[in-house]
Amino acid sequence: MWKIPSPKRCRDLKRLAVLTSGGDAPGMNAAIRAVARTALARGVEVYGVSKGYSGLVNGDWQCMDRTSVANILQTGGTILKTDRSDAFRDPQVRADTAERLRAAGIEALVVIGGDGSLTGAHRLEEETGFPVIGLPGTIDNDIFGTEDTIGFDTAVNTALESIDKLRDTATSHERVFVVEVMGRSSGFIATSVGIAGGAENIIMPGHPIDFQLICERLNDSLRRRKFSSLIVIAEGEDPQLTSQLTHDLGVAGYPARACILGHVQRGGSPTGHDRVLASYLGSVAVDYLLAGTSNVMVGVRKAEVVTVPLQDIVSNKKVVPDELIDLAQILAT
Amino acid sequence: MWKIPSPKRCRDLKRLAVLTSGGDAPGMNAAIRAVARTALARGVEVYGVSKGYSGLVNGDWQCMDRTSVANILQTGGTILKTDRSDAFRDPQVRADTAERLRAAGIEALVVIGGDGSLTGAHRLEEETGFPVIGLPGTIDNDIFGTEDTIGFDTAVNTALESIDKLRDTATSHERVFVVEVMGRSSGFIATSVGIAGGAENIIMPGHPIDFQLICERLNDSLRRRKFSSLIVIAEGEDPQLTSQLTHDLGVAGYPARACILGHVQRGGSPTGHDRVLASYLGSVAVDYLLAGTSNVMVGVRKAEVVTVPLQDIVSNKKVVPDELIDLAQILAT
Amino acid sequence: MWKIPSPKRCRDLKRLAVLTSGGDAPGMNAAIRAVARTALARGVEVYGVSKGYSGLVNGDWQCMDRTSVANILQTGGTILKTDRSDAFRDPQVRADTAERLRAAGIEALVVIGGDGSLTGAHRLEEETGFPVIGLPGTIDNDIFGTEDTIGFDTAVNTALESIDKLRDTATSHERVFVVEVMGRSSGFIATSVGIAGGAENIIMPGHPIDFQLICERLNDSLRRRKFSSLIVIAEGEDPQLTSQLTHDLGVAGYPARACILGHVQRGGSPTGHDRVLASYLGSVAVDYLLAGTSNVMVGVRKAEVVTVPLQDIVSNKKVVPDELIDLAQILAT
Amino acid sequence: MWKIPSPKRCRDLKRLAVLTSGGDAPGMNAAIRAVARTALARGVEVYGVSKGYSGLVNGDWQCMDRTSVANILQTGGTILKTDRSDAFRDPQVRADTAERLRAAGIEALVVIGGDGSLTGAHRLEEETGFPVIGLPGTIDNDIFGTEDTIGFDTAVNTALESIDKLRDTATSHERVFVVEVMGRSSGFIATSVGIAGGAENIIMPGHPIDFQLICERLNDSLRRRKFSSLIVIAEGEDPQLTSQLTHDLGVAGYPARACILGHVQRGGSPTGHDRVLASYLGSVAVDYLLAGTSNVMVGVRKAEVVTVPLQDIVSNKKVVPDELIDLAQILAT
Repeated sequence: MWKIPSPKRCRDLKRLAVLTSGGDAPGMNAAIRAVARTALARGVEVYGVSKGYSGLVNGDWQCMDRTSVANILQTGGTILKTDRSDAFRDPQVRADTAERLRAAGIEALVVIGGDGSLTGAHRLEEETGFPVIGLPGTIDNDIFGTEDTIGFDTAVNTALESIDKLRDTATSHERVFVVEVMGRSSGFIATSVGIAGGAENIIMPGHPIDFQLICERLNDSLRRRKFSSLIVIAEGEDPQLTSQLTHDLGVAGYPARACILGHVQRGGSPTGHDRVLASYLGSVAVDYLLAGTSNVMVGVRKAEVVTVPLQDIVSNKKVVPDELIDLAQILAT
Repeated sequence: MWKIPSPKRCRDLKRLAVLTSGGDAPGMNAAIRAVARTALARGVEVYGVSKGYSGLVNGDWQCMDRTSVANILQTGGTILKTDRSDAFRDPQVRADTAERLRAAGIEALVVIGGDGSLTGAHRLEEETGFPVIGLPGTIDNDIFGTEDTIGFDTAVNTALESIDKLRDTATSHERVFVVEVMGRSSGFIATSVGIAGGAENIIMPGHPIDFQLICERLNDSLRRRKFSSLIVIAEGEDPQLTSQLTHDLGVAGYPARACILGHVQRGGSPTGHDRVLASYLGSVAVDYLLAGTSNVMVGVRKAEVVTVPLQDIVSNKKVVPDELIDLAQILAT
Repeated sequence: MWKIPSPKRCRDLKRLAVLTSGGDAPGMNAAIRAVARTALARGVEVYGVSKGYSGLVNGDWQCMDRTSVANILQTGGTILKTDRSDAFRDPQVRADTAERLRAAGIEALVVIGGDGSLTGAHRLEEETGFPVIGLPGTIDNDIFGTEDTIGFDTAVNTALESIDKLRDTATSHERVFVVEVMGRSSGFIATSVGIAGGAENIIMPGHPIDFQLICERLNDSLRRRKFSSLIVIAEGEDPQLTSQLTHDLGVAGYPARACILGHVQRGGSPTGHDRVLASYLGSVAVDYLLAGTSNVMVGVRKAEVVTVPLQDIVSNKKVVPDELIDLAQILAT
Repeated sequence: MWKIPSPKRCRDLKRLAVLTSGGDAPGMNAAIRAVARTALARGVEVYGVSKGYSGLVNGDWQCMDRTSVANILQTGGTILKTDRSDAFRDPQVRADTAERLRAAGIEALVVIGGDGSLTGAHRLEEETGFPVIGLPGTIDNDIFGTEDTIGFDTAVNTALESIDKLRDTATSHERVFVVEVMGRSSGFIATSVGIAGGAENIIMPGHPIDFQLICERLNDSLRRRKFSSLIVIAEGEDPQLTSQLTHDLGVAGYPARACILGHVQRGGSPTGHDRVLASYLGSVAVDYLLAGTSNVMVGVRKAEVVTVPLQDIVSNKKVVPDELIDLAQILAT
């Protein structure tokens, strides 16, 4: 649970729009619901935009009432759909979009998505002055300025469901499991899954695989007669990474099995943690808009709901602390 | 639920042994528990063999009491472990094993495993007269003579957990998911998962992929504006099959994502169905031994627990009926 | 999996209606989907009736297309809703309903529900000649003539999820758990849950509680140093039964804890088993109507999909075989 | 994820003991594992005490090695068992216990449990100088000084599993569900479950039930044609509370159904969040002991792992902030 601020209302806001963009994240629907219900409670009309920035560019939005967001709190996916829009990369298109929004009487925009989506939102406000506020909706938990993102907790638990089943099957000779989790350039899922799954090895995206070290640790496990060994590997940029490692381990005398979850990690019913996080952030975002705050993302830091200038998000990267990876090693030894 | 026979006890049996062999299957522990508890209730000592036929060959067995099988009803894996033993393929080794068992006062052997394991059991009795009885423990459900095997229901549900999450994430443009399930040479998992998961295409092991037909159906789905399309593919013999298909679909204009569950399907807590099936079969197996029946497998047919001569299992293959695959197509259209 | 018949088409059918009635059962949606998709594949129009017989009486139905049943295969509940209608008990109302259906060009009705709902369907056809066909949709598995009902497998697994968690917490002195499952007058859920959950005592609805026997078995478990003991009790007619038993056990020196699941057992995503069962039955029901068969329920017996005259269902009760309860006792000792 | 401190090692510690006490909490095993593995990595012997303070008083402890804590990361319950000990309330018994520990060469004690257990630990150190360090192991999340406790996240998700299923079944006329969650004197579970479950009413322990307000909100939901309404109620001190409320609602014209989860909420596999939290706290606790810190609990505050003087925990209560309950109301309207 996080401490919720109560920004003081100081402006009128008749109409806002909300969209989801980028990769799906469980809890996006809970966030949409929180935005809608809070806005309606404050007397603000809500327009839901279809298919992220693609829909925004085309003026593809519809008025929402309270029943539009009924029964979605526990569902994965997003009722507003998402998209990755190339058109929105064009400043002219952004200018036209701002005009279109204003012409429709829409006075602010809530964007729920990851880094790329928040960057688009930032540019919209910087260039056109159209007020935006962002929510961190991504399973990667790699957005600067917030310690948590909507969907991360669920994705970690999804990976653990599979790892727990794998541990059951290690009832034969020593077995090595290579589990690939999502994370093109960030290793937060890999790290959390590694600690919570008891992995002896966590391979982070972009980090070279120290094959010799992996084999040493496997020998060590064999000596200590462990039933099974787990290597958690972030998908990284190379789609062949996991099968290559699995193959090399077999050749080196460690029969290994790969499990590639893929997009499964983006779906599923959000955990309680993600529902509550999404609800807090969605609700507070509306109150910040009513307090005249924009060009920020609402996130969490030090157990409090805070705002983070979108500028900071655009220009900074978030990195996994080293001590977490050391901790994982100690616990699995 | 199945109708349980009550074979009439007609012989004395002081001591039996039980082992699990081959790939893990959820419910194996429930079966071990049922064998042990029923044997003890009938005044028969139970010896648990470690690591399948490897342990049997080495005389690696231990006496079990009721607490040996406490708290295992709901766990995946097998407390007796399994192995794939090459040594047991040798008739001389089988002869020595029978002698070793008799010398230890063990009068019968219960084997829980798949085709290969039941074949080994059959040969043991045929060649040495040592009484064996088999239970169908495999997720593949490909054992002739029984309509169900211990672990199949759980494996299907495990695959569905992932498919259900994938369906959530199809909230963008049309997305094609290729989900690889287990099944080297049998397509029972693929068929059930296909029907229960709403797949438009089910690719069976050994069947050539009709790529043109798959694309036609995808076009059809696009036209009917389906959110997502699912292709379920049995792993077959070629480890590259799934990634090749996924790649080819992308090239043909259908962005596809792969999910390879692998050994996850062999683990996890057994479903109620598998716990009850394992309990029935394990219990009845002991009563059949006490009735002087052996060289059979205890399975289910027409909603009844029946015996199937091991000879029949060895010499027959079980095939997925065609009408099931047609049904899957109708339901997904 | 069950053997599917292929009834020979011999009549024209332009339009059918489908409704769900009585208590919810997971898999009802999968059944609706199968009815709709199969009908459309056969060139038959489908009308979905809202709120069971209440809606039928009011002519509250709407044409369905394939997208009406998209994405519901894995969801609990029923998109058509249900109701318990008193109006339909009146023969005049039934006569008027048949007329209303005919006036709308609807030529047959598929009813998905339990005993009561199937009785209503039977009377409709008996009195008015309007063709009906039933599907067994109830978690209780108490419908005569079919060995399984849509929703039973899921309800059993739901109860087991809670029982498995209870077993974890028995890490202190011996603990007795009293788990109440659904079953006003039938004990199928209690029996399956008892066997799959390892219960020492299963209390069936209508059966008097043999308190002394329960205490004897608890003493026995204590002596054998079991961690926890489980009593599964069907809800029966008396809402105080479970709390009374829990209280009495405490007074007798066996601290007990109650878990009352209630309507949780009627919801949740259907298992693979229930999705496949619902899909088979829904599909075959349509083909039977096209073959001129009606006034029957489509169910399963001896691993085959069969028809059962509704008359037989109305006039017979299905009872849990005694040997199952004995088996439960042996396995838990 | 939390920021982990690195307390500087400044003393020798040859031997420590660890115990779990009070009600079970999922994640206790993960904590035991973290304590053991970190201690062993630092060259400290670990003794596991059986059955909480009861075992401590009787000198019932055993040396643990790394395999003692193998394969427990994902399991509910506690391998060391728990107990509620009356004997330890006696200062003389505490004095004798300290002496016994010292005689065995044990130099520090890690206590994993709730308020009562931490109070006992505090008294032990205050009176005898024996170094203790506490970890917050309880599903209630009601320990002063820490924002989270091991087991809370899992318990919330367990309740949500049931609530999600109940929502499925509200496919008939408006249905009211009364779900009772744990919480004798604290409402943290009720609050989180209420927000994450979309409850219109959350009844906190000790708070009088405002029946009129509840009925007003139900009327409101009816008017807005909600499918179902959810009331989450903490168990409080009166075991009749939930059934009384359910009954009164029925009488007032709102047919309601009760779901009483009971001890189910104390079991089950810990979530990723609880496994990571338990791992961090268990590991850091050992490092704090090695840095000479004791008579504290290791917890989390402002997203950092911190120490909290046990004295503060004993003398303060933690209260649910009001604004959370208001938020729940807005979101559910």
